[in-house]
Amino acid sequence: MMKIITLLTDFGSFYPAQMKGVILCKLNELIAPSAGSPSISASSITFVDIAHDIPPQDVRAGAFALLSSARYFPAGTIHIAVVDPGVGTDRLGLAVESGGQFFVGPDNGLLLPAARSLGQPVAYKIACKFEESMSNTFHGRDIFAPVAALLAAGQNPSSLGPRVLPKALSFGDTKKTDDGIEASIIYVDRFGNLILNMQKLPGFDVSLKGVKLKRVRTYGEGRRIEPLITIGSHGFAEIAVNQGNAAEAFRLKAGDRVELEEI
Amino acid sequence: MMKIITLLTDFGSFYPAQMKGVILCKLNELIAPSAGSPSISASSITFVDIAHDIPPQDVRAGAFALLSSARYFPAGTIHIAVVDPGVGTDRLGLAVESGGQFFVGPDNGLLLPAARSLGQPVAYKIACKFEESMSNTFHGRDIFAPVAALLAAGQNPSSLGPRVLPKALSFGDTKKTDDGIEASIIYVDRFGNLILNMQKLPGFDVSLKGVKLKRVRTYGEGRRIEPLITIGSHGFAEIAVNQGNAAEAFRLKAGDRVELEEI
Amino acid sequence: MMKIITLLTDFGSFYPAQMKGVILCKLNELIAPSAGSPSISASSITFVDIAHDIPPQDVRAGAFALLSSARYFPAGTIHIAVVDPGVGTDRLGLAVESGGQFFVGPDNGLLLPAARSLGQPVAYKIACKFEESMSNTFHGRDIFAPVAALLAAGQNPSSLGPRVLPKALSFGDTKKTDDGIEASIIYVDRFGNLILNMQKLPGFDVSLKGVKLKRVRTYGEGRRIEPLITIGSHGFAEIAVNQGNAAEAFRLKAGDRVELEEI
Repeated sequence: MMKIITLLTDFGSFYPAQMKGVILCKLNELIAPSAGSPSISASSITFVDIAHDIPPQDVRAGAFALLSSARYFPAGTIHIAVVDPGVGTDRLGLAVESGGQFFVGPDNGLLLPAARSLGQPVAYKIACKFEESMSNTFHGRDIFAPVAALLAAGQNPSSLGPRVLPKALSFGDTKKTDDGIEASIIYVDRFGNLILNMQKLPGFDVSLKGVKLKRVRTYGEGRRIEPLITIGSHGFAEIAVNQGNAAEAFRLKAGDRVELEEI
Repeated sequence: MMKIITLLTDFGSFYPAQMKGVILCKLNELIAPSAGSPSISASSITFVDIAHDIPPQDVRAGAFALLSSARYFPAGTIHIAVVDPGVGTDRLGLAVESGGQFFVGPDNGLLLPAARSLGQPVAYKIACKFEESMSNTFHGRDIFAPVAALLAAGQNPSSLGPRVLPKALSFGDTKKTDDGIEASIIYVDRFGNLILNMQKLPGFDVSLKGVKLKRVRTYGEGRRIEPLITIGSHGFAEIAVNQGNAAEAFRLKAGDRVELEEI
Repeated sequence: MMKIITLLTDFGSFYPAQMKGVILCKLNELIAPSAGSPSISASSITFVDIAHDIPPQDVRAGAFALLSSARYFPAGTIHIAVVDPGVGTDRLGLAVESGGQFFVGPDNGLLLPAARSLGQPVAYKIACKFEESMSNTFHGRDIFAPVAALLAAGQNPSSLGPRVLPKALSFGDTKKTDDGIEASIIYVDRFGNLILNMQKLPGFDVSLKGVKLKRVRTYGEGRRIEPLITIGSHGFAEIAVNQGNAAEAFRLKAGDRVELEEI
C-alpha cells in the first residue's frame, strides 16, 4: 500500500525536512517487529511538497494553495498544512477527513476550504499527547508530523480525540458597487498574476484602474503585454498581463481590494 | 520496476504538486485491478524536481537547465518540462524519446537540446484526448502529467500520436569581433555566475569590460574576489568572481550580450 | 530495506537534481544482475531535501541547518551536505559515521556539529577514485553523490579511505561585556527571526539596541509586533518580532554581532 503525504507550510527551508524525518522515524517505530504485522513500510511513503513559500503567517494564501491542489490527489492522501500564527496558544490541532482524504494542521481555517471542496468534512481535535519533549513553537514537527504518520499507518482519525466543529475561513466577500464589483486579491503567483476571491467572471466587460481587461479563456488569446482577466486553472478569477507581470503593472499585492469597473 | 519522473517548470510553488497528484491518480487508475496485471505501482515512482524557478517564460534558460541535467539520469527516466508562453495556442505537445529517456512538454524548443544531447530524438505529437475538463492555461497538469503517467506505466510514445519534427532551439551564436568574441548569457545561477553560449574557452586570454578574466580549471585557483573564466560543470563557459558574484560585479543578467576582448 | 538520503546545499536549483540522478544511476549499477544479489533497489530510496538555499558559501549557516535537522532522522540516514568554497583545492572529502547516521561532504567543518550532536563521530577520508570524467567545480555530483550511493548499497565508510580527524567548526563565542552579553547571528530564517550562537537564554532580562526583548516560551505569548527572545525549536536562542520581522526591525543580518544589554 502506497501512502502519499503532502506538506504545505510557510517555513521556507529545513523545517519541512525535519517534519519528514519525524514522519519516517515514527513510521519505523510503528512498523517495528514488536508492533506486529506492518500495514505499511516507510519506503512506500511518497512525499509531495505543495508549497513552503506561503507568505509568512498568511492563512488565507495557504488555504487557497491547499484548496487549489487537494482535488488533484488520490483518495487516501494525507495533507499536512501549517501556517500557524497561533502556535503555542490554545488554538486546537485538527485531523479532518473529507472525500477520502485527510488534513492535519491548526484549527485556524487553513484546512477547511480544501476539505469542503472534497465533501463533507469530519474534524477531530488532536487530544493525544506525544512523549517527546515538545517545542512550543513548532507543532508542525512535534504534533502534526507524528499524527500524519499514525494516519499513514492506518489509524482512524477518530482515535485522536473528540469530534469538533472546525473554524471556518472566508476568502472575503465581493461587493457590488455603483461602478462594478469590488473584490480582494487572495494570492499573487510568481508570474505576478492576481488571483481574486471570485469564482466566475463578471457578466460585463471591466477595467482595472482605468485599463480595460480583455476577457479570455487562455493567455494565448492576448497580445503581448495586454492586460487580461480569465478563470485560472484553480477555478478563481485571475488578472494577468500576457507575458508580463500584473502585480508590478498595477502595483497591487495580496490582501489589496480592487474595483473592477463596468465598461 | 522503479520509474523516475523529473519535473522542470517556471511555476514556482504548488502547481508542480498538482502535476504530481495527477500522475499519482492516473497511475492508480492504470494499475487498478480491472486494468489487468500492473507493470508498475505508484509507490515505485521517484519524483525528482529539477527546477521550478526558471525565469518566467524563459524557454532558453529552461532548455539549458534540462540539457545540463538529463545526462545524469538513468535510462527509462521521464522528464516533464513546462516553460510554455504559448499555452492555449496551437503549439503542439510532444513526447520525445532519445537515448532511452523520455521528454514530455510543449513543442517550443525546450526539450530538444537535452534530447539531442542523449542521442537521436524521435518526437511524437500528443494527439490523444483527455476526458477530464481541461484548463486552457495549465497543460502541464492537464496533458503532460497524464502522458508521463502513461509512459511510466509502459505505454509506447508512438501510441500518443503521429511522428513529427520538433521545433529546434538555438542558444544563439557567438561572433568573432575585431577585438575578440561576442557571446550571450544564457543563465545566471544563484552564485551570480554568468553562463555563456560557448562550450569551450577562447584560445587566448580575455577581459570583460576591461577586467582580465583568469582562465582556471577550478574556482580554488582564483584569489578571493578575482574574476575568472572556466568551463563549468555543465560544459558551458562560465564567468565567475571567486567567492563573489559576477552578475553584480559586472552588472549583467541573462539575455545580455557580452564581448570577451583578447588581451 | 528503505534508505533515506538527505541533501543540503547552497546550490539553489537543478544542481541538486543532478546529484539525485547520479545516485539513482550508481544504485542501478550496484544492483545490476551481474553485481549479485541486490541489498537495495533504487525504488527504496527516499530523498529528503533539507535546504538548497543556504547563503552562498556560508559554511556556518549550512552547519546550523544540518545540526538542527539531523537528530530528527532515523538511524541509517545518509546526509549529503555541500557548502564548499574550497572545492577544487586540496581540502579533503569525508564520510562520517555518528550515532548510526552517515554524513558525506567537504572537510570544512560543515558536517561536524551535526555529527557530534548524535554521538562520537568517526570520519574517513574519501580516497577512492571515480572513473567518470570529473568536474573540478562540482564534487557534490562527481564524488559525494556516488559515495552516498555506495553507503546506501551497504558499503562500510571505512572502505572509502583512511580514518582522519575532521576539521572542527565553531559558531563563535559569546562574550560577557560590561552591559550584558555579546553574541553572533548564525542564521536568519524566512520569518526574519535572528538565531544566535547561544543555547540558553541569559539569566537576566535584556534589551537589543535599546528595545526590551520579552522572554517567552512561545510566540503566542507576545503581543502583535512585540520583540521577543526565546529558545527556538532548534535549541538556539532566537530573537523574533511577534507576527513581524526582527531582521528588518533591527536591521540585522547573518554574521552580525549583537549586544544583549542587561536591564
